[in-house]
Amino acid sequence: MADLGSNTTAVLTAADVAAVVRSVGVDQFMDHMIEGVREAAKGLDPESTMTIERGGFQYEKPSLGLVEWMPSMELGRAVGIKTVGYHPSNPIQRGMPSVMATTSIHDTANGRLVALVDATLLTAIRTGAASAVVTDVLANEDSRTLGLVGCGAQAVTQAHAMSRVRPIDRIVAFDADPNVAASFASRLPVSVRVDVVDSAADAIVDADIVCVATTVDIGAGPVLPMFGLKAGVHINAVGADFPGKTELPVELLRNALVIPDEVAQCLKEGECQQLTEDDLGPTLPELVQNADSFTAWREQLTVFDSTGWALEDLIAAEIVLGHATRLHIGIHTELQHSPLDPYAPYETI
Amino acid sequence: MADLGSNTTAVLTAADVAAVVRSVGVDQFMDHMIEGVREAAKGLDPESTMTIERGGFQYEKPSLGLVEWMPSMELGRAVGIKTVGYHPSNPIQRGMPSVMATTSIHDTANGRLVALVDATLLTAIRTGAASAVVTDVLANEDSRTLGLVGCGAQAVTQAHAMSRVRPIDRIVAFDADPNVAASFASRLPVSVRVDVVDSAADAIVDADIVCVATTVDIGAGPVLPMFGLKAGVHINAVGADFPGKTELPVELLRNALVIPDEVAQCLKEGECQQLTEDDLGPTLPELVQNADSFTAWREQLTVFDSTGWALEDLIAAEIVLGHATRLHIGIHTELQHSPLDPYAPYETI
Repeated sequence: MADLGSNTTAVLTAADVAAVVRSVGVDQFMDHMIEGVREAAKGLDPESTMTIERGGFQYEKPSLGLVEWMPSMELGRAVGIKTVGYHPSNPIQRGMPSVMATTSIHDTANGRLVALVDATLLTAIRTGAASAVVTDVLANEDSRTLGLVGCGAQAVTQAHAMSRVRPIDRIVAFDADPNVAASFASRLPVSVRVDVVDSAADAIVDADIVCVATTVDIGAGPVLPMFGLKAGVHINAVGADFPGKTELPVELLRNALVIPDEVAQCLKEGECQQLTEDDLGPTLPELVQNADSFTAWREQLTVFDSTGWALEDLIAAEIVLGHATRLHIGIHTELQHSPLDPYAPYETI
Repeated sequence: MADLGSNTTAVLTAADVAAVVRSVGVDQFMDHMIEGVREAAKGLDPESTMTIERGGFQYEKPSLGLVEWMPSMELGRAVGIKTVGYHPSNPIQRGMPSVMATTSIHDTANGRLVALVDATLLTAIRTGAASAVVTDVLANEDSRTLGLVGCGAQAVTQAHAMSRVRPIDRIVAFDADPNVAASFASRLPVSVRVDVVDSAADAIVDADIVCVATTVDIGAGPVLPMFGLKAGVHINAVGADFPGKTELPVELLRNALVIPDEVAQCLKEGECQQLTEDDLGPTLPELVQNADSFTAWREQLTVFDSTGWALEDLIAAEIVLGHATRLHIGIHTELQHSPLDPYAPYETI
């Protein structure tokens, strides 16, 4: 938990976050995140931990994208707000990540901005970690083959996170762009056999666990076939995060236990757009709190509809901030000056 | 308009913002802000300029306060998000401003964070500027006496802004805390006669213009008496910004032309909480766009219900960012790293 007592604002750049992750160790950092998300879900008290459904501006010019904000609060302590830019055309057209984000942490004792943390890497890591928490409950213990549909940045942390909770020894990878599939193995922080295949159907046929994370266009889904899965597969559906964007066939969802991370958000932007609230299984926190009663579902089809839970972002930023403070990484600046006279706005002019 | 082309994020601290305002000149800066708000209101095209009603967390522990966010977008160019901490007990209990804020600017071409600007001083200045824009339409040309109820930080910029649009030569000031009233003149950037009085009634009796900006407790209003105003007074009601917090008597509002800055927000958090939508006059943009048809109201009672218009914050941040870039003020950091491979989140680990 970060120190909220200082008068400065910590600014942690992408390089600072990378330095923290490097120092902690990439596997250990992922484990911290998995544990952080699991503990937050397990101990979730709606009276003291609150999230507000994300809001945002969606637009089609100058290019299709959105800027949105994801707020969460731990009452009596801190508010976290992640602002996210999502531009699916970024990698190909601009050489930039499709998701870029920053998280701000505010002290609720006085409203001060405590920290601003680049959350681009963290968003990918926490999304992997959330999938790992659900997978750890719902995937068979001996899940060894991971099927990937979509091999971009999110797929890297999905695969990494899966390897932390299950003995993954083979990844079968498909991407609509063969170059992205071909480079996938080189981007992984773990050494696993990766077989690149030519279709989503081929990627899932042997899979014990499937992760889907594509930038399929609005209305162009599904990207996963209706049939061809082994029995007892667990699917992490990561890509649907925009009204109209879905990756899974509705028939598949109807046959599965569907775990939404945030019900309202999933119904609006996730795979659950294709369902009604009555069709849904337990939420991520409900699943973790009652994990023992859901392990029987390992024999059946289960789907995690991951649209992103705002609390994950506060947790991720605080883990990094804690390490950064300990390691003296990042700059601390008087971003918000405390004047000698709080009534004198022009004091320093 | 700020340069959105760079790959770095500009971080402008309170000291940087102060340096910009000092370099431009405090009067000239206020004039820029007044002109910026007026032009934005005049040219407002709802198809290309959008604001989303602010959201936030309100809480009573560890102390009464809120953290909220105020988003705006100029389509095809930029999104601005101001995050605000409001803690009325800050000045007395912590020696900190009651309002502390930062504004982030995001490039809608790619979602990148272009700048983070301390908005504590800017919030006070833009709130003054918005009052000036409305006052310039609705107050008599020869308004010379300004009545102030509440003499904190916001009152300083209200008085300053009033002096830029009307020939103010006397300020009659009341604050529930006599020390705050006593120090008011020393905090003003202009040289005007200031008479401190013992009651709100005494502050308004001679006033041509009244600005009300208090931290009155929720449910404890009004702070202004029902009677005692001269004919044709214009009131800027700045303090109501929280459900349950109001400063003006409802009977006074019912007798006035009431200008909301943002209708939904004013009905929820402003003086307009005491009214229904049917009771309201033109919004700030409607007033500016039809200024000539409203000058007849200078002879009557008018009230500006200023809860804060998110676009004001984007304008303020962009004015500062433009000057800061020109003057080489502030740090430019690779907050959001653009990796060599946008698909490789662990590239730099």
